[in-house]
Amino acid sequence: MAFDPATLTYTSDGLIPCIAQDVEDGAVLMMAWMNAEAVTKTLETGRVTYWSRSRRAFWVKGESSGHVQELVDLRVDCDRDCLLAVVRQTGPACHTNRRSCFYTSVTHGDEVELMRPMVD
Amino acid sequence: MAFDPATLTYTSDGLIPCIAQDVEDGAVLMMAWMNAEAVTKTLETGRVTYWSRSRRAFWVKGESSGHVQELVDLRVDCDRDCLLAVVRQTGPACHTNRRSCFYTSVTHGDEVELMRPMVD
Repeated sequence: MAFDPATLTYTSDGLIPCIAQDVEDGAVLMMAWMNAEAVTKTLETGRVTYWSRSRRAFWVKGESSGHVQELVDLRVDCDRDCLLAVVRQTGPACHTNRRSCFYTSVTHGDEVELMRPMVD
Repeated sequence: MAFDPATLTYTSDGLIPCIAQDVEDGAVLMMAWMNAEAVTKTLETGRVTYWSRSRRAFWVKGESSGHVQELVDLRVDCDRDCLLAVVRQTGPACHTNRRSCFYTSVTHGDEVELMRPMVD
């Protein structure tokens, strides 16, 4: 069946969450939002492209930092209201220069930092 | 630093997305929503507990199906507006009986099913 971004379920703001997972080791890197046009751009260009809610603009991941995400596979969930982008990540995915945005663990009631910023 | 669910960033509906990842092989299983009380329940019970938006009720994953998620680690992202639950999953995570909700790949413009329902 041909894929049509219009068949996805979006929020009232026209957005759908997209999880980025590293193809190398399966690490969950980040979650950000796309609109239908960002989904299309991601598939057409092979560069993962989100919609920045704060800037209200397309956000080609890594366009300024160089920390690009090359799309390996885009997956749709059963409810069609969440996406999973399997990616080849260059450098850190997180704006803090950590590899993943999920670097804080809740352990025995405390917040514990699991990873330090990557050094370029 | 002590973790306080009230310090997370929730949507205007009081919800935060939570990604579930299998501890065994890193597979991304599903994404669902929690409110602050569901986060607390998840940490206190060790059973991943979401908030069902359709039923407007707590949803102890697997409570009726037996396909429970035992919490291994709960992680918070850099913006504190998304959670990652590393889990030990019993049976399929998806209501379609597939292991993961992300069983559809967009490949060369077509939707391709990557996995079949698990047999009990």
